Amino acid sequence: MKVAFQGERGAYSEMACYDFFGSELVALPLHTLDNVFQAVSDGSAEMGIVPIENTYAGTVTKTYDLLLAHDLFIVGETHQRIVHCLLANPGTSLERISRVYSHPQAIEQCESFLIELGVEPLPFRDTAGAARFIKERGYAEEAAIAHEACAQIYGLELLKKSIETNAENATRFVVVSRKHLKATEDVKTSLVFVTKHIPAALYKCLGGFATNGVNLTKIESRPHKTEKSRYLFYLDLEGHPEDPNVKEAIEELRFFASFVKMLGAYPKETSQ
Amino acid sequence: MKVAFQGERGAYSEMACYDFFGSELVALPLHTLDNVFQAVSDGSAEMGIVPIENTYAGTVTKTYDLLLAHDLFIVGETHQRIVHCLLANPGTSLERISRVYSHPQAIEQCESFLIELGVEPLPFRDTAGAARFIKERGYAEEAAIAHEACAQIYGLELLKKSIETNAENATRFVVVSRKHLKATEDVKTSLVFVTKHIPAALYKCLGGFATNGVNLTKIESRPHKTEKSRYLFYLDLEGHPEDPNVKEAIEELRFFASFVKMLGAYPKETSQ
Repeated sequence: MKVAFQGERGAYSEMACYDFFGSELVALPLHTLDNVFQAVSDGSAEMGIVPIENTYAGTVTKTYDLLLAHDLFIVGETHQRIVHCLLANPGTSLERISRVYSHPQAIEQCESFLIELGVEPLPFRDTAGAARFIKERGYAEEAAIAHEACAQIYGLELLKKSIETNAENATRFVVVSRKHLKATEDVKTSLVFVTKHIPAALYKCLGGFATNGVNLTKIESRPHKTEKSRYLFYLDLEGHPEDPNVKEAIEELRFFASFVKMLGAYPKETSQ
Repeated sequence: MKVAFQGERGAYSEMACYDFFGSELVALPLHTLDNVFQAVSDGSAEMGIVPIENTYAGTVTKTYDLLLAHDLFIVGETHQRIVHCLLANPGTSLERISRVYSHPQAIEQCESFLIELGVEPLPFRDTAGAARFIKERGYAEEAAIAHEACAQIYGLELLKKSIETNAENATRFVVVSRKHLKATEDVKTSLVFVTKHIPAALYKCLGGFATNGVNLTKIESRPHKTEKSRYLFYLDLEGHPEDPNVKEAIEELRFFASFVKMLGAYPKETSQ
């Protein structure tokens, strides 16, 4: 099975693929998140795995925009602990490093470590790309911050593991597919809606969930791209759209919303 | 008056300072958002201006975290249209450019232009820093994507204005201060709360706003950092906490919430 992800070999997204599917798959690296949605839509990949939120960086709005624009369904979620590692060319040592390349977010998350080491942080497009880059150059004074797996992929040495300041850093990924998933136990459902232009619209839209005992696990408003002063609401809830109480709640939602799009139902994974 | 911002001279945050306060101020460039909140808290700056959300990148979660951690108040908001410009050393031309430095988000927003130009995009910590960097090196084949003002600040030439793919790109900034603002007309209020552990908690927390005719303009859940499976809700609403209907709604909120923190009331600015 082919699973598309955004980034280069060794990206955190690729590691999320293996965590979710096991190693029996072909992980397909693509340049952008648009490319991933496109590949799944046109069938060049069976599934795609995309980041949807991070403890520190928050919601990946681009993924939400693409879920709205494409007719794909979320069929799974997986949480990936982000453990940053300092990788360098073989034969060098921590003391010789003077320049460290990585994605600006990774640099920020490892700032205390980098300051203490007294090195110059240099931004790169992504973490795995930074690993490839320092290998190509081969300088003993250069290092990259990336996933541990990049050491093996690019022939680098692990100088130090877990250099991030806050250990609870995690990214939630979702798996997208052209096909719905059949109902199972312990399911979560994601959807997006736009309220009708009526007073207390959001409150009314949420009423069905409250009175039917449906737990909401995420709510987020996003400005409507074309209609000013209107909002899209992204909702995650516990249960399957075919569960009687969820079904009831969504019917009530449709009465107060001008637009409802189901984004998928999938087994719930507890954040580590 | 001293106003702290994150970034270097010519950063979009600095431009937001002048848009909001006029030119009669000392804009204080600081390294991080933490530094900005710290400077306002300890009095080394009267105010701070910080990004809170962007059309494409979404919410700046770091700013929300800092609003929660510090005892500062939002006293204003301003929307800054992000118009990216290609800047280069004087005497060069568009045809000679082969490398373009900027923040990865700016590079992404200008991707179509860069591909058409056939240049290599190179990531940099921030847009203004990239402008300073290419000036220091002085190469005719290097350019930076930054705010137009960086041309004058760093002695560069404007090669092309508005090179971003989507014209509606804007960032909302908020102004923070140690002091509350007195009530005025056309006010917005921001607050954060944690629901009590009761069924339909969010719905109950929003009830007071619905029944008192208080319009919500933003809602966003964020996972609680220490208590798993609990959420913080950030809310923007129309009106002042001293308005009778808002007061009533917040009293009702306090009944169903285990924690409420007022983040400030400030004149509403319509997004351009």
